[in-house]
Amino acid sequence: MATTLSPQLSRPDVEALVREVLKQRLSAGGYGRYAVDSRAGAPHPLVVNVSARHVHVTQEHLEVLFGRGTKLGKMKDLYQQGEFASEQTVTLVGPRQRIIPNVRILGPTRNYTQVEISYTDGVYLGLDLPLKISGDHAGTPGITLLGPAGALTIQHGVIRARRHVHMSTEDMAYYGVKDGDELKLKITGPSGVTFEGLTVRYHPKVILEVHIDTDEGNACDLESATKMELIK
Amino acid sequence: MATTLSPQLSRPDVEALVREVLKQRLSAGGYGRYAVDSRAGAPHPLVVNVSARHVHVTQEHLEVLFGRGTKLGKMKDLYQQGEFASEQTVTLVGPRQRIIPNVRILGPTRNYTQVEISYTDGVYLGLDLPLKISGDHAGTPGITLLGPAGALTIQHGVIRARRHVHMSTEDMAYYGVKDGDELKLKITGPSGVTFEGLTVRYHPKVILEVHIDTDEGNACDLESATKMELIK
Repeated sequence: MATTLSPQLSRPDVEALVREVLKQRLSAGGYGRYAVDSRAGAPHPLVVNVSARHVHVTQEHLEVLFGRGTKLGKMKDLYQQGEFASEQTVTLVGPRQRIIPNVRILGPTRNYTQVEISYTDGVYLGLDLPLKISGDHAGTPGITLLGPAGALTIQHGVIRARRHVHMSTEDMAYYGVKDGDELKLKITGPSGVTFEGLTVRYHPKVILEVHIDTDEGNACDLESATKMELIK
Repeated sequence: MATTLSPQLSRPDVEALVREVLKQRLSAGGYGRYAVDSRAGAPHPLVVNVSARHVHVTQEHLEVLFGRGTKLGKMKDLYQQGEFASEQTVTLVGPRQRIIPNVRILGPTRNYTQVEISYTDGVYLGLDLPLKISGDHAGTPGITLLGPAGALTIQHGVIRARRHVHMSTEDMAYYGVKDGDELKLKITGPSGVTFEGLTVRYHPKVILEVHIDTDEGNACDLESATKMELIK
């Protein structure tokens, strides 16, 4: 992006522009909170997104919760192309008989149903959450979901998502890593934190994006971050 | 402690014993979750305590909430001598008309009333929390507290406590720091995190103890930590 801009623009100008454009894009399309940093020479700006609690569903489970023939409606696009926050939300019911309402389903539908919540949510609901990469449900607890058309109890699929970074081939080459490697994410600011063990998740079509959960986003107060770096 | 033990005990034995003793002590006396690490040569083992949300009150405010003449009853001792979790709890009412019940008052009473909650709690209640050291209420928001004898609205005093470490003269000498300096806390484990900007808080009578909040404790999954270090 920077290479096509007018040479009258200084590096700080370019960086400010990149931030502004991404901010608009994320503001229109984000789910949860985020921050953006740019780095000279990097193929893509570093976007860190705080994933609010959310649910992924199969088409079959969607119909149990919302009625036969229901399709996920798009509320807004997410940063990764094709992903979206849907119009549908569910209520989670945990073993302590406490509930968390208004938990959004992210689309499109998947071939598994999965609930991604923070440890704070887990303590509140009474679930001992395993730290997992999306789709790995070995040893994970279940939960009950309530929708307007019915309740659904899944036996597995509640996780705390392991912190990770989505990378394309270009991003992996720049950072010198491969799929499954780990990086550190250093957040500088009033509540500075370095997160270890950020898993690299490769897909040819993704844009560079870090996902952390709300506990992590709050621990580092991401919104007040002055600098963000991926380091080996 | 280690110096008075039988010479038949190896260093790992001693460390295991120290952990066990501290675990019992904290288990009997802790408020919230914690982890302990020992380090050869250090004057005190490193205790990291996750401060659950809590309240400090003046005697006057205690009586508004619980009735004239009420004294704080001790539920259990905390790690620092003289500090205790009281039998009394209040309900917090935030600007989004949401509540958090069962928030414990820590004793003894102080010369100010203060509510310490996490950013997660702040988002839930609708409060934009400043990061503060205990007692610094400049620019802090207020809140309403409900007790069995009445409601109390304070205009200031709701904070997110800045991560800090309590140290005696001996601890400061060992780590080579002084009151107000900053250290890093490195947590090794499945959700490894290095926290920057841990403020050193000196008092001649304290025992070495780190305080982080629930967002921070959950971000690093303190309970699964395999090693904890204070580094400069």
